[in-house]
Amino acid sequence: MGLVLADDLLGRGLQRIQGEIDQAFDAILQVSEDGRQRLLMAMRHAAIGGGKRVRPLLLVTTAEMYGAARPAAVRAACAIEAIHVYSLVHDDLPCMDDDAMRHGRPTVHKAFDEATAVLAGDALHALAFELLTDPATSSDPFVRSELVRCLAIASGAGGMAGGQMMDIAAEGADFDVRAVTRLQQLKTGALLGAAVEMGAILARVPEEGRAHLRAYARDIGLAFQIADDLLDHEGNEAKAGKALRKDADKGKATFVSLMGPEKAREQARALSEQAIGHLQGHGREADLLRALARFVVEREN
Amino acid sequence: MGLVLADDLLGRGLQRIQGEIDQAFDAILQVSEDGRQRLLMAMRHAAIGGGKRVRPLLLVTTAEMYGAARPAAVRAACAIEAIHVYSLVHDDLPCMDDDAMRHGRPTVHKAFDEATAVLAGDALHALAFELLTDPATSSDPFVRSELVRCLAIASGAGGMAGGQMMDIAAEGADFDVRAVTRLQQLKTGALLGAAVEMGAILARVPEEGRAHLRAYARDIGLAFQIADDLLDHEGNEAKAGKALRKDADKGKATFVSLMGPEKAREQARALSEQAIGHLQGHGREADLLRALARFVVEREN
Repeated sequence: MGLVLADDLLGRGLQRIQGEIDQAFDAILQVSEDGRQRLLMAMRHAAIGGGKRVRPLLLVTTAEMYGAARPAAVRAACAIEAIHVYSLVHDDLPCMDDDAMRHGRPTVHKAFDEATAVLAGDALHALAFELLTDPATSSDPFVRSELVRCLAIASGAGGMAGGQMMDIAAEGADFDVRAVTRLQQLKTGALLGAAVEMGAILARVPEEGRAHLRAYARDIGLAFQIADDLLDHEGNEAKAGKALRKDADKGKATFVSLMGPEKAREQARALSEQAIGHLQGHGREADLLRALARFVVEREN
Repeated sequence: MGLVLADDLLGRGLQRIQGEIDQAFDAILQVSEDGRQRLLMAMRHAAIGGGKRVRPLLLVTTAEMYGAARPAAVRAACAIEAIHVYSLVHDDLPCMDDDAMRHGRPTVHKAFDEATAVLAGDALHALAFELLTDPATSSDPFVRSELVRCLAIASGAGGMAGGQMMDIAAEGADFDVRAVTRLQQLKTGALLGAAVEMGAILARVPEEGRAHLRAYARDIGLAFQIADDLLDHEGNEAKAGKALRKDADKGKATFVSLMGPEKAREQARALSEQAIGHLQGHGREADLLRALARFVVEREN
């Protein structure tokens, strides 16, 4: 499969999932007229019309690969995206990263206010688990419960939130590549891994049949983060739609600061190839996951 | 049953559940040595050794009333308390209520810092759903999924978070008793209702058999809030362990400001009696819920 074809496949895949996620959030987040308008409007601002939707694409593609129905997978994908989006809203707060722009638009606390941003993040967090336990996501309560369990573990103290705490602790600390790897495996890797795992849960792939998917997710997670560091180092703020070089300014250890840009790029590409290697038991139905593994290291934002 | 006996029963009930919840959080929130220490310490600061544990008592008492095993109920009670505690941590932030003291101790952002408080709240939020989907909470995946669904709906935009947004909007707004009632039903009532409902779910009480429990919870929820307004109006900061009269200072409509303290106290007592009336189909096994209904309006903090 040529790179052009892969890009085309991926482009169509991303465009389709972006439309589906926007449409689903638009239907779910209906603005009420009872003093909660501001909350719902802030949730919509955060959740609709921005972001690459990489986690939803991973989840839906994996679920479909194993025969799950797409509408149910899109619902579960909204749940993991709600978690990702809430983490961005809280991460952008003045007491955290203090970012004014996200996806080329004002962040939630800039467009609204800080209290609303805290609450909108909290409400998106709860929404994720409400969506997963809706019988429309799966008629099997075991599947619903396992989806919740996977997402809760990946986003809590042992996953994303724990990684964010390590990230704050990393400022000025003496981190090596191993420590940064561990941090990123929690901060971004856990949720990317959960996306693939949730797709497999939805399609009832047994636990022991998911090892290669977990390995794939682990590799693209790290590749994704190294590419992020490279974009931050060399990138273009207009394309990124957010402020860059903030890590370097804070003296925070990153893959690029520790390995240098050439070695980092080499490592990201090697991880991407390694990720694709984990899919060798699959045929054409895994092409989108292969294309995504290439995309995460070649993307420009 | 005399009031002394009721108080004694309630006193023992509260003491027992407080010990169980503290012990459970102590076991669950183990501090790691990998850069997440600060997060876990902040979660422990928030979750252990403070609070009346009214929601856990409601959940466990209801579950036992219908024959559920206590250890499983205590686990589910930790989940709802984790949600309550995270909401207090976020509510105390400078951009929200800006409180320095809670349960007679510094709030999380004072004892740690704001970023840690945001993350500790988020991690407690995720923990709640991790606990509920643990097979140790229930071996029945339908029960686990329904517990999650009940708690997620009660804590999100249609429940607690929505009520908090309405509460912020209430500052300086022209609210009447009906609007304040609706606000409080979301802000505190939804979670108190979920406590009773989750106890019933855990004991597999069918949906249609829970109407009187929901009515009980709705009444004590409102009574609880009116009593809170009265304590805020007349109360003792040392006993409350937090700053008081903040609502009045902000010109926020409360039950007391709208009804006057006498009428408010009368209303709280009437709601408490009405709540007890909903339990008339139950025998001695509901005595603790009856005592709790009296306690919420007579308490001094």
